Amino acid sequence: MIYYVNGEFVPQSKAVIRVDDLGLLRGYGIFDFFKAIQGEAIFIEDHLDRFENSAQKMHLSLPDSRDNLRAAILEIIRLNPCPSLGVKMVLTGGYSEDGYAPADKANLVILAKPFVSQNPVKPQRLMSVKFQRELADIKTTNYLTPIWNLPKMRAMGADDVLYFNDESVLESSRSNVFIVKGGKLITPKNDILYGISRKHILERASRELEVEERRIGLAEFFTADEVFLSSSTKRVAPVVGVDDCVFSGGVVGKVTGRISELMLGA
Amino acid sequence: MIYYVNGEFVPQSKAVIRVDDLGLLRGYGIFDFFKAIQGEAIFIEDHLDRFENSAQKMHLSLPDSRDNLRAAILEIIRLNPCPSLGVKMVLTGGYSEDGYAPADKANLVILAKPFVSQNPVKPQRLMSVKFQRELADIKTTNYLTPIWNLPKMRAMGADDVLYFNDESVLESSRSNVFIVKGGKLITPKNDILYGISRKHILERASRELEVEERRIGLAEFFTADEVFLSSSTKRVAPVVGVDDCVFSGGVVGKVTGRISELMLGA
Repeated sequence: MIYYVNGEFVPQSKAVIRVDDLGLLRGYGIFDFFKAIQGEAIFIEDHLDRFENSAQKMHLSLPDSRDNLRAAILEIIRLNPCPSLGVKMVLTGGYSEDGYAPADKANLVILAKPFVSQNPVKPQRLMSVKFQRELADIKTTNYLTPIWNLPKMRAMGADDVLYFNDESVLESSRSNVFIVKGGKLITPKNDILYGISRKHILERASRELEVEERRIGLAEFFTADEVFLSSSTKRVAPVVGVDDCVFSGGVVGKVTGRISELMLGA
Repeated sequence: MIYYVNGEFVPQSKAVIRVDDLGLLRGYGIFDFFKAIQGEAIFIEDHLDRFENSAQKMHLSLPDSRDNLRAAILEIIRLNPCPSLGVKMVLTGGYSEDGYAPADKANLVILAKPFVSQNPVKPQRLMSVKFQRELADIKTTNYLTPIWNLPKMRAMGADDVLYFNDESVLESSRSNVFIVKGGKLITPKNDILYGISRKHILERASRELEVEERRIGLAEFFTADEVFLSSSTKRVAPVVGVDDCVFSGGVVGKVTGRISELMLGA
């Protein structure tokens, strides 16, 4: 695969950064991820919007213009001609003078990896974890808690985590969460990352059914008719269980199936 | 400077890792830091203990034995002959297959930097931040919240942050916190990183005065006679203010001065 590192296109094996990087030493970095299908970068402007937004909120400057970043992404897609490609761009605090304060110049990396779509997407079982992401509306590189929980998750046969804080359901490690209840589609509004798939699902679903962005309490969540996750990787992933609780009889719910159809091809 | 990267000693400018590293992509890493003064690694066995402990708790395997790690550290100190040197060792989740689950082989890096001691240590002003570190007893590389707070801190004229959760004071970004009240030395017991300086201060101070490790409520904290921080960098740093509150009349307190003496040379 060909990667991009601070302006250069290099083979993956030579795509390196100095170990003084603040993303490595202090976990200070942001990223974004999207799929390119048959050479087309899906929802690319949304992802560029969010990446710029994450950078600004983290007090990091993108080293180049949006047009040049888009051009670099398109070149990465051209140089890695896979039918389905996952593209990740990462921006870190750069080579900090004192190993703590972000440098004037951030480090920018673009990675690419062949992407194997699941079709249909495997129904997910989740493990609940009391946790709210730091700087929740910024797509930071901090995945300490979910990765630390992997052994426990695997032991329980879970596919991913479900975060909740106090009495509200929030999100999964790399997905937003939706519930279907009484024919309505409901998704949390605060203390989450605002997913690109989430945005498009809300937009498309609202033409057919009632949708609500608001707090979802635990009691409401655990009595939902259907639950699903949304992400750029899986788009729509049915959730058939959380801890010991089974949703929609352990099979893919009707509304979830319809939302999957609405997102087909993306 | 000469660094160590996965078994090799290399000049700083060539000390690189591939951008597929999980410390960079997912912030999944631990580290430890200590000073070497006139070639002597201060409290090295304590730091090796804690590094091994952090690795184990993070489900990461050190790629080599403790003896070989110590030998690599001593070689780094020999190759960077500064009167006072800061040494940092970093262990990450390695080059992960799927960019998420830790690899079988972790990446191990050792960095070195000339260290300029402050003498006397500049009295600190802190900015309180409601925050508890994730996996608080593991020395992870996650510094999102304190680095994100730097602009606000600088605007307030603060030198560092003071974390508290609910009603308890916890720690600073890279230091433990102590208070002096009614002649007693008190430091938080739970939800913190257990500092090496903290350990030695408790040990040495307990020969001269009453010491307590326990929860410190906010009300108790803000009526303390003296406050100081402990860290491997500054050892003992007096705190003269937190937000708008002034401690010990804005000068270094008597007990703080005595604890600094007890830690002289370390």
